[in-house]
Amino acid sequence: MRWVTVEDLDDLAVGAALLGAGGGGDPHLGKLMAKQVMKEKGPVRLIRVEELPQAGIVLPVAMMGAPTVSVEKIPSGQEWDTVVRLAKSFLKDDIVALMSAEIGGENSFVPLIAAAMLNLPVLDADGMGRAFPEIPMTSMNLSGVPAAPMAMADERGNRVVVDAVDNAWAERISRMITVMMGGSAAIALYAMETKAVRSAVVEGSLSQTIRYGRWLRSLAQGKMSFDAFSQATGGIPLFQGKVVDVIRRTEGGFVRGTATIVGFDRDDGSVMRVEFQNEHLVAMRDGEPVAMVPDIIALLDAETFMPITTESIAYGQRVMVFGLPCAPLWRTQAGLELVGPRRFGYAFDYIPIDEVDRHGLSTGN
Amino acid sequence: MRWVTVEDLDDLAVGAALLGAGGGGDPHLGKLMAKQVMKEKGPVRLIRVEELPQAGIVLPVAMMGAPTVSVEKIPSGQEWDTVVRLAKSFLKDDIVALMSAEIGGENSFVPLIAAAMLNLPVLDADGMGRAFPEIPMTSMNLSGVPAAPMAMADERGNRVVVDAVDNAWAERISRMITVMMGGSAAIALYAMETKAVRSAVVEGSLSQTIRYGRWLRSLAQGKMSFDAFSQATGGIPLFQGKVVDVIRRTEGGFVRGTATIVGFDRDDGSVMRVEFQNEHLVAMRDGEPVAMVPDIIALLDAETFMPITTESIAYGQRVMVFGLPCAPLWRTQAGLELVGPRRFGYAFDYIPIDEVDRHGLSTGN
Repeated sequence: MRWVTVEDLDDLAVGAALLGAGGGGDPHLGKLMAKQVMKEKGPVRLIRVEELPQAGIVLPVAMMGAPTVSVEKIPSGQEWDTVVRLAKSFLKDDIVALMSAEIGGENSFVPLIAAAMLNLPVLDADGMGRAFPEIPMTSMNLSGVPAAPMAMADERGNRVVVDAVDNAWAERISRMITVMMGGSAAIALYAMETKAVRSAVVEGSLSQTIRYGRWLRSLAQGKMSFDAFSQATGGIPLFQGKVVDVIRRTEGGFVRGTATIVGFDRDDGSVMRVEFQNEHLVAMRDGEPVAMVPDIIALLDAETFMPITTESIAYGQRVMVFGLPCAPLWRTQAGLELVGPRRFGYAFDYIPIDEVDRHGLSTGN
Repeated sequence: MRWVTVEDLDDLAVGAALLGAGGGGDPHLGKLMAKQVMKEKGPVRLIRVEELPQAGIVLPVAMMGAPTVSVEKIPSGQEWDTVVRLAKSFLKDDIVALMSAEIGGENSFVPLIAAAMLNLPVLDADGMGRAFPEIPMTSMNLSGVPAAPMAMADERGNRVVVDAVDNAWAERISRMITVMMGGSAAIALYAMETKAVRSAVVEGSLSQTIRYGRWLRSLAQGKMSFDAFSQATGGIPLFQGKVVDVIRRTEGGFVRGTATIVGFDRDDGSVMRVEFQNEHLVAMRDGEPVAMVPDIIALLDAETFMPITTESIAYGQRVMVFGLPCAPLWRTQAGLELVGPRRFGYAFDYIPIDEVDRHGLSTGN
């Protein structure tokens, strides 16, 4: 057991933006809310899977919806309390810990905010090891845990319980409710008995996120070299250049689009296109995919190394496209069927980021 | 107490199509399902408000969605059992009777089907005295009863509980869920304690519907004169002619459109337009409204007198446009704010059907 304190939150925000692959909502807003709640209520216990009691429920919580929306539609904070209490009303056992449904942006802070408000511990794990845009794209689903019954709440006090026949129907129904709630909703889903947790989650990912964030901030402050950072995280720099075009639209509860980046080295003439659906899906260099889901594609500010989320990519930004290998469970056949490139409509098979031939792209650029 | 038997169902179907003002879903399908269930389980007890026990819950049930959809997407019947059981899971007291949320088409049969399956009585009442297209348009809402928590189910087994902050939010959220469930959904809502029922419902409307249907069938069989029928129901013939155009589209969980009818008397040159949103909203003769919500506008086949629902109006049909006064509660100021013509986007005030100057339109045509 360790504590997540107010001091960890800056690291968590940076790490979550990195591992969130551009998605998961605005980390800044989540951080501010978590700081405020934790200053008032104190730090949050972070427990490992092996520290869970024999019986009880682990409840993942998240903000659902398009990240572009939650920037403008600020949550009241109260909806986390509301949604967990609503889940309590149908759960058969006590909640012994909350959990992140996904790492990334706002959604890394959500369980901390709710846990501080409700005096519960948070499990050092999540359901993705990154962020993904749809409810069935979780380790819980891979191991057969149903998302339903699923609790939903908005900042007005509207509450909905979705008891869908499967996780695809849970996604469809809750996505429409999210749209109707104004584009974002507080959700609690994939409730698990403690004995089912080990095989169903990505372990250690919350503390990993804090660690990665601390390193990235050290890199930004010149206290760590880029090579040391890449080595420590297993990350790979894919491209450096200037954003020359961003197409982005919010539809059906998602933000979808493409960022086009032209290399700094004009003679090279290379162009990178990064396509996204809440999260970055594929990075294509001159039409050839060089990184793809489920691996993590992050855009970093070329000067400060701070990650840029899909809703804040803008013309003229100077960026580095940076890739990180995904959690091993996603590289299985079942994992790739759920979150591989074909699942998002691409006509090519997954190639792990560490096996792509990148035509001798230098890490020193 | 009386019984609703299999023999009443043909009368109920005709009466419901008449009082449903063109909406409420296909009565034929509801009738077939009710016949099948009642043949197997026996007749259903129909109780009056004064026969309700001191304590317990009256639960209105209905099919939500565009009538055009439920013609093609046939309910399994099981969803009524599912939705009532789901409501039971959050209601604080026993269900002592089911009730029609609205009179009209399929929705007059829904409580009978559910009551036969669950061995419950049905209250001789409804929440509209006709059909209306939106959840807040009920006598329960007028008297301050909340629609939520509201239970929803589809024929696949998906179940949703909507606990909205008000009846307008219950409508918005459940309408989207209905769309996602394929355009129609079984719902249970506006649960009332027995002592709150009297002031919150339109009393006697189910037996009235059976009675009106029996008269209309007698008229069709030549056993009753049209004048006797009009006098018994208080109804007014508004126009006779041929349908020359129908515009109809299904969108956002509603079917909206207009039927244009040219008078049989060609020399007269009159044209009637009947506009609808699930139900007929306004009848305009040569551009002048001659009947409007909340009064009931029905289209009857000119030969057989059988009512025609909005989803089955077609080019070439020879029809009579027939009006009936609405339940008195809708003619109050609060009632008209909820279901008057302005509420549906019309720029004129309500004129009761019995006060419109119809330029000497003869009832003998």
